[in-house]
Amino acid sequence: MRSAIRKRLIELFTASEQDFVSSQQICDELGCSRTAVWKHIEDLRKEGYEVEAVRRKGYRLLRKPDKISEDEILFGLETELFGRHIYFQEEVASTQIIAHDLVNKGAPHGSLVVSDHQTNGKGRLQRTWHSPNGTGIWMSLILRPEIPLHKAPQMTLLASVAITEAIAQQTGLSPSIKWPNDILLNGKKVVGILTELKAEADQVHAVIIGPGINVNQTANDFPEELKDVATSLQMELGEKVDRAALIQTIMSTFEKRYDEYMTYGFAPIKQLWESYAMTIGKRIIARTVNGQYVGTALGINDEGVLLLETEGGIQNIYSADIEIKST
Amino acid sequence: MRSAIRKRLIELFTASEQDFVSSQQICDELGCSRTAVWKHIEDLRKEGYEVEAVRRKGYRLLRKPDKISEDEILFGLETELFGRHIYFQEEVASTQIIAHDLVNKGAPHGSLVVSDHQTNGKGRLQRTWHSPNGTGIWMSLILRPEIPLHKAPQMTLLASVAITEAIAQQTGLSPSIKWPNDILLNGKKVVGILTELKAEADQVHAVIIGPGINVNQTANDFPEELKDVATSLQMELGEKVDRAALIQTIMSTFEKRYDEYMTYGFAPIKQLWESYAMTIGKRIIARTVNGQYVGTALGINDEGVLLLETEGGIQNIYSADIEIKST
Repeated sequence: MRSAIRKRLIELFTASEQDFVSSQQICDELGCSRTAVWKHIEDLRKEGYEVEAVRRKGYRLLRKPDKISEDEILFGLETELFGRHIYFQEEVASTQIIAHDLVNKGAPHGSLVVSDHQTNGKGRLQRTWHSPNGTGIWMSLILRPEIPLHKAPQMTLLASVAITEAIAQQTGLSPSIKWPNDILLNGKKVVGILTELKAEADQVHAVIIGPGINVNQTANDFPEELKDVATSLQMELGEKVDRAALIQTIMSTFEKRYDEYMTYGFAPIKQLWESYAMTIGKRIIARTVNGQYVGTALGINDEGVLLLETEGGIQNIYSADIEIKST
Repeated sequence: MRSAIRKRLIELFTASEQDFVSSQQICDELGCSRTAVWKHIEDLRKEGYEVEAVRRKGYRLLRKPDKISEDEILFGLETELFGRHIYFQEEVASTQIIAHDLVNKGAPHGSLVVSDHQTNGKGRLQRTWHSPNGTGIWMSLILRPEIPLHKAPQMTLLASVAITEAIAQQTGLSPSIKWPNDILLNGKKVVGILTELKAEADQVHAVIIGPGINVNQTANDFPEELKDVATSLQMELGEKVDRAALIQTIMSTFEKRYDEYMTYGFAPIKQLWESYAMTIGKRIIARTVNGQYVGTALGINDEGVLLLETEGGIQNIYSADIEIKST
């Protein structure tokens, strides 16, 4: 099926707002015969669209498939720049690797790499990220903020705020953020964000924000070692979530918060981050390469550093695994 | 000429410390006839080596060509890791671009990219760097320090210290550093260093140190717009400088200072940097993207930030072009 025809058909259905579209109207719009229209509808059905056909009324779109592709993401996207250049591939080793390559080739601000399946998904600190086929959102967003290097960690915090808001908006769930940038539901991880950057010593060239979002996994989709610590939106919500729509929402909240950041600086983002963060005020254990610290999380500073009140004084935590002590 | 034979021949000459090496000795070492030896010597001469031949005495190496290649750099290199993996190409667009590619492919700490000619050499802040054929050192060193992101600028300062020391050691000249990392002789630029990095939000993956060093240019090699502001080692010293030997010296001083940094931290490097810096204590103009500041340079902090005492108080300068006001 030619993607231009598919796109136009979906536009027609979406414009009619769940009302029927007559065969004649489709014939006129696409400039083809009724037989051809029927064939196009059959093609849509094969791709997972549920289309109802009623005599004398025409066709009606009941449900889009949970499918992500360039078209699905672009159609209905409400942003100016975020997600406007999409590089979609069914299967990749890692969307971050592709994004790095695109950065070196000059890809513009807002470029988005998306895949249905990562064979070698990357997590923070050189770990892997379990990215099974067709169930999650595996993507990397390329940003080119003109900021000095020391402000780069603020972009990570901005990303977790934007994704938390998008999930809340789309599903009604109330995720919380665990420092630095895990997003949890009921204490289990639903989003991990790998932020990488390319920079000069005094200037950022590109920030690559790579969230892995568990969307439609069921409990059995997780390997044994993740079952107690990971969850998906579907498992928490009790129903499937439209991945393309969620990507669109993330692009919108992200662009909005980014513009705010560029206009008003980090202060409003920091305030939002702290309002979503579950870490602040809690007793935590921070495991760093230099050893382990136990104390109360006081907050973050403008560099995204976690301030930990320990017995020996206030400790700056730059990079660590955090465990929240049950109280 | 097979590189193994060339390498062995040069080793023989170097081991004899400017004494003659007899034909017989060469025959024995290489396992070939006197005629073959003569042919190998002729090949060396074609590559620019000056070899003296004296009857009954044998051959003596008078002068190596100012040539850089993997062999020239490796032979006599006294480091453990720095420069041990060399990627040499006669001509490249930019050694930084190749280094980025190697970083993504997992090139180890200390890997060095060197070229004789850059067609699109990169300078700081997306500028170009004039890199004519066969006259300078155009290289990129890949380091993989396990340091948090906010310490990355310290690597730039470490690089300028190591290169300043290597130049002083090799030539007897006394270069000075202009913040952040230009190296000057008699007020003119002889080295520029582009430092780029790949990092996670909280951890450095790789630092790519790319110095461009003007070595054997004469005044006519510089384009008109650089004549007043740039110089070369040869122009200041009055004689040619062996580029391969200078690369070796830089690798040695760099490795030494890097190991010191990893053991004792930034304090000793900062002290050295300040002792070579011409900026400190001077009245300067700092041109930043946010405007221009005039004041007295007080020093640098641990993040490599320049502290400028202005009429309105102390200003932190993260990224700027610096002009030193004549007093």
